[in-house]
Amino acid sequence: MDNTNKSACVYLVGAGPGDPELLTVKAHRLLQEADVVVYDRLISPEIIEIIPAGTTRIYVGKQTGHHHMPQNAINELLVSLARKGRQVVRLKGGDPFVFGRGSEEAQYLVRHSIRYEIIPGITAASACSAYAGIPLSHRGLANSVRFVAGHCKADETLDLNWQGFADQDTTLAVYMGLATLPQLQRELIAAGLPASTPAAIIEDGTTPRQRRHLTTLDRLVSIADDNAIKSPALIVIGRVVALALELDWFAGTDSEWADEYVSQTAKG
Amino acid sequence: MDNTNKSACVYLVGAGPGDPELLTVKAHRLLQEADVVVYDRLISPEIIEIIPAGTTRIYVGKQTGHHHMPQNAINELLVSLARKGRQVVRLKGGDPFVFGRGSEEAQYLVRHSIRYEIIPGITAASACSAYAGIPLSHRGLANSVRFVAGHCKADETLDLNWQGFADQDTTLAVYMGLATLPQLQRELIAAGLPASTPAAIIEDGTTPRQRRHLTTLDRLVSIADDNAIKSPALIVIGRVVALALELDWFAGTDSEWADEYVSQTAKG
Repeated sequence: MDNTNKSACVYLVGAGPGDPELLTVKAHRLLQEADVVVYDRLISPEIIEIIPAGTTRIYVGKQTGHHHMPQNAINELLVSLARKGRQVVRLKGGDPFVFGRGSEEAQYLVRHSIRYEIIPGITAASACSAYAGIPLSHRGLANSVRFVAGHCKADETLDLNWQGFADQDTTLAVYMGLATLPQLQRELIAAGLPASTPAAIIEDGTTPRQRRHLTTLDRLVSIADDNAIKSPALIVIGRVVALALELDWFAGTDSEWADEYVSQTAKG
Repeated sequence: MDNTNKSACVYLVGAGPGDPELLTVKAHRLLQEADVVVYDRLISPEIIEIIPAGTTRIYVGKQTGHHHMPQNAINELLVSLARKGRQVVRLKGGDPFVFGRGSEEAQYLVRHSIRYEIIPGITAASACSAYAGIPLSHRGLANSVRFVAGHCKADETLDLNWQGFADQDTTLAVYMGLATLPQLQRELIAAGLPASTPAAIIEDGTTPRQRRHLTTLDRLVSIADDNAIKSPALIVIGRVVALALELDWFAGTDSEWADEYVSQTAKG
């Protein structure tokens, strides 16, 4: 729409969950047109591959044992690239406005008079659930969907209104929740969510490496430990998870626990 | 991945919110390849336009004064088309697994041994909020995001755990909420959510017709009435809505109320 204005622009682009075909048409086009792509740790290798060879790539994510670039340095990098006239794609995993700190970067750009656009992406809860055969809503099972980020600063615990979260009619999707999983499991049960509530952990969702672990709320921690589950992983808690065995359309790999889950739910 | 298997398949495809560039690459490809596209009322004209001329289009949505095709008839139509060997795209507004009844159609297909895939789409809450400059999460303003469908059967009221919904730390996005807006506004305030909580209604989000209405929780009903707001419209309630004035990147039209909102929030 705005092609007459050729001034530099920073596109805050959601990369979706990992499968490059789940990029939006707009994100795909902008990746082809960009001069520079500034990207995070959670961008899948399959998506990095579609960036044209001549495009400058700047990695600002964290690597084991190293600090990632502080948020303020990322903000300044975006402004500095735009002021040099570069067309910048700031590529963020999932959706930039869902636990992506995209709004902080947008505020910084506004305040420095840099033109920008937000390009929403498929957020992990939608994508990983769909590829795991879990509908986020389903008549009679869930009339509401809730997303929360499970991460917090080192040595801190999650400070949430647990009573409000312990709602059997709601599907709860937890992003980046592996580190605080013991607290999550304990608090939700203490707040009244049945220990037997179906629950899933989806590792590397939507990619060829996807693993789907089906269990119940009270066994999430042991499933994560026993299977050495690593980030990126999405946790889904709620009655809809029980539909995952029937709606298993994606050729993902179930962990060995799925069989036990079948026998549990068959009993229940 | 599965191109060797040329048997018919039903693709349950999320169309996203309206802007055809917010289709996923996969949805766009499947629309080009399909023999038949079965679609709903909330698919934007811009998206219908990209379906190739030779493709059969079957409309199953509701029109004013007419009944829409019952869900069971849609289910049977999909099975019947697949059994004739047609490649079918079942195109649904937003995301098929977020208030889209996609899981009911998927269950029916499984039970009739029809191959299917789920292609998630950008759900209205992500897309319309992004285009309205409202981040769903933002540090210090919202640590959780909640989606709920506001529609219910005629003569019924919404039966929700209102205490749980009245959470100042959560951004609440209400789909299809115009009809029950009076109840929603009343119950949330009664349950303790401040009447002054920032709130927005986004009409025809992401399309050139987008209108953005910024207000507060206690004035949602009068804003909807005064502006004759019609479906499709997304309602967003939460502190993050206050960022919308600064993050107004999309050339949408604000209603006249925005000025009043500015002065209100400037006071507050």
